[in-house]
Amino acid sequence: MTVFSFDIAAADGGARTGVLTTPRGVIRTPAFMPVGTAATVKALYPDQVRAAGADIILGNTYHLMLRPGAERVKRLGGLHAFMGWDGPILTDSGGFQVWSLAGLRKLTEEGVTFRSHVDGSEHALTPERAIEIQADLLGADISMQLDECTPFPCTRDAARKSMELSLRWAARCKAAFGVREAQALFGIVQGGVYGDLRAESAQRLVDMGFDGYAVGGLAVGEGFETMCAVLDGVVPHLPAERPRYLMGVGKPVDLVESVARGIDMFDCVLPTRSGRHGQAWTDEGPVNLKNARFAEDREPLAPQIGCPASRDYSKAYIHHLVRCGEYLGSMLLSWHNIAYYQHLMARMRAAIAEGRFEAFRAEFHARWRDGAADQDSASVSP
Amino acid sequence: MTVFSFDIAAADGGARTGVLTTPRGVIRTPAFMPVGTAATVKALYPDQVRAAGADIILGNTYHLMLRPGAERVKRLGGLHAFMGWDGPILTDSGGFQVWSLAGLRKLTEEGVTFRSHVDGSEHALTPERAIEIQADLLGADISMQLDECTPFPCTRDAARKSMELSLRWAARCKAAFGVREAQALFGIVQGGVYGDLRAESAQRLVDMGFDGYAVGGLAVGEGFETMCAVLDGVVPHLPAERPRYLMGVGKPVDLVESVARGIDMFDCVLPTRSGRHGQAWTDEGPVNLKNARFAEDREPLAPQIGCPASRDYSKAYIHHLVRCGEYLGSMLLSWHNIAYYQHLMARMRAAIAEGRFEAFRAEFHARWRDGAADQDSASVSP
Repeated sequence: MTVFSFDIAAADGGARTGVLTTPRGVIRTPAFMPVGTAATVKALYPDQVRAAGADIILGNTYHLMLRPGAERVKRLGGLHAFMGWDGPILTDSGGFQVWSLAGLRKLTEEGVTFRSHVDGSEHALTPERAIEIQADLLGADISMQLDECTPFPCTRDAARKSMELSLRWAARCKAAFGVREAQALFGIVQGGVYGDLRAESAQRLVDMGFDGYAVGGLAVGEGFETMCAVLDGVVPHLPAERPRYLMGVGKPVDLVESVARGIDMFDCVLPTRSGRHGQAWTDEGPVNLKNARFAEDREPLAPQIGCPASRDYSKAYIHHLVRCGEYLGSMLLSWHNIAYYQHLMARMRAAIAEGRFEAFRAEFHARWRDGAADQDSASVSP
Repeated sequence: MTVFSFDIAAADGGARTGVLTTPRGVIRTPAFMPVGTAATVKALYPDQVRAAGADIILGNTYHLMLRPGAERVKRLGGLHAFMGWDGPILTDSGGFQVWSLAGLRKLTEEGVTFRSHVDGSEHALTPERAIEIQADLLGADISMQLDECTPFPCTRDAARKSMELSLRWAARCKAAFGVREAQALFGIVQGGVYGDLRAESAQRLVDMGFDGYAVGGLAVGEGFETMCAVLDGVVPHLPAERPRYLMGVGKPVDLVESVARGIDMFDCVLPTRSGRHGQAWTDEGPVNLKNARFAEDREPLAPQIGCPASRDYSKAYIHHLVRCGEYLGSMLLSWHNIAYYQHLMARMRAAIAEGRFEAFRAEFHARWRDGAADQDSASVSP
């Protein structure tokens, strides 16, 4: 159905590492995809994203269809040329963002109509239009089916109804996508927090046959333990030989636990959003550079990462930039955070390849707990 | 008095080109100094500033004494180490920014007291403190005397009174600065728009003896013609063998006309401020990238400049970024503008060295007028 090959080089417990080969280059998995919402990974240059270690980025159909418009991107040569990123791009279907527009959207069997958050203009997304935008107009290497993100909390009946709609839309997306040599289409498992629904959703998607399988509808308020439990339940129903993508996740600890459960791909706005809000991610958790304790800290954020933002600027300087609201503060922290996330993925890939992932995971948790303890004590100190 | 040597390699009419040698590297003149207000040239990385062709940057005493504080910068190794810029730095004295705080400042013979725009805290600047901050704490390669910026309009009596105060402060700054081998001190000519006052101010500063001479109190509303007339009057009173610095100027056309009158150094926030507001500078004037006519313009801003921001991104993409309020839009336009300004200075230096500055100046004016005409016609078209 596609030339996208996924080669698993090593597995260690549930975790696995490998390479997803695309016509635009290879993606080392487990992979974290920086989010390029509006055709830019916020506050980074494309070459910084690449040098930080990202093999693939994510684009948002919702944002791009509103600005600059999908047809315009097509006329300008497609999303890769438009934004100067020649590696693989995965686009979401727009479903999640539209779903977030509570009160501004209307859902029917046919699809969803909504008003733009930018100018109030009316737009529509159907499964067919979502594929046209992603695969034909933006030129995504990997397109996602249109789905309905099941909210949390949600009754079983509502979760089933939503899941069934997403499955019907999956079939329509697959039909619209057809057979393509150089592009891939992923299905999205829904079903809320109900293990049997998740299993059924996965199985019925697998029966349709997709190039990869995403787990959607998590990180929407269900909490860390529930997310892990859902993954424990759903992953066994996904084919080992296809990539598994956990959408919209997450914090570093979420990535480690999801990799342990067999997830291969991630995306999240957290590293860039945190960077714009003065936070640096570390193995000990998020650090707020605005904190006065950094005012004269001459150490860099994390020289071992090798990223210039993490190595060549003191915390005191970044503290100053953040305090002053300077662009460079957001630029450096966003860059560091993307590099930190990529470095974390690289460490996980190496640990899996070398058969020591459980040791890595235990050490990571110890550091993460220490960081949380530090933050607790810091929050009660004067 | 100092090891700062200024070697004029060529002159062409009133214009001259040369090299100002400092312990931290050479400054090719005429030079444009990007403004690093709060220890950062806004939205640029230090290596971008350097690669764009800047030999020296400017730091603002006012901003740095408030945040992070001059003593703190000293403890952190000085301004160069703090901000990661190893080339020469010129600092202003803080006088101009304090002068801009109308209503929040109080001027006496001793100096000026003012309230911080950040937190309302009270601060004082005297000639002695301005030197201590610049030369001892920040570690500026070139310090500026504390002066009072004469407003426009201003009566002759008020302009003389203000000029006399600046001259007394100049003497106190020189005494406080003392004899330094590796740092320089510039005096500032005031006198408003009154040619005889300007001449007297210049002569009395020259009699005191400074390493360089700045022309202050221009670009404060007097207009282009008056600014040129003041320069015509004052430059002949400044020694040919010392660098001449026109403070806070300006638009590209201002730079060309001031170079023609013998100015060697400039600083201005315009390129970075314009960049944050969606404007790109060109020989034809400022271009507003937000304009709908760029929505599908696949051309880069100015590939001949050689700067990645000017060469590797389409106007359509930058238009999109600016419309979306994305960081990268401000980053690319600020970078392009700094590179454009540096490229303009390089072209002027080459034209002077090759004895064709008048031809360059005439061609520049022709393009500038064409641009103004385009903008006029654009502003009346639908």
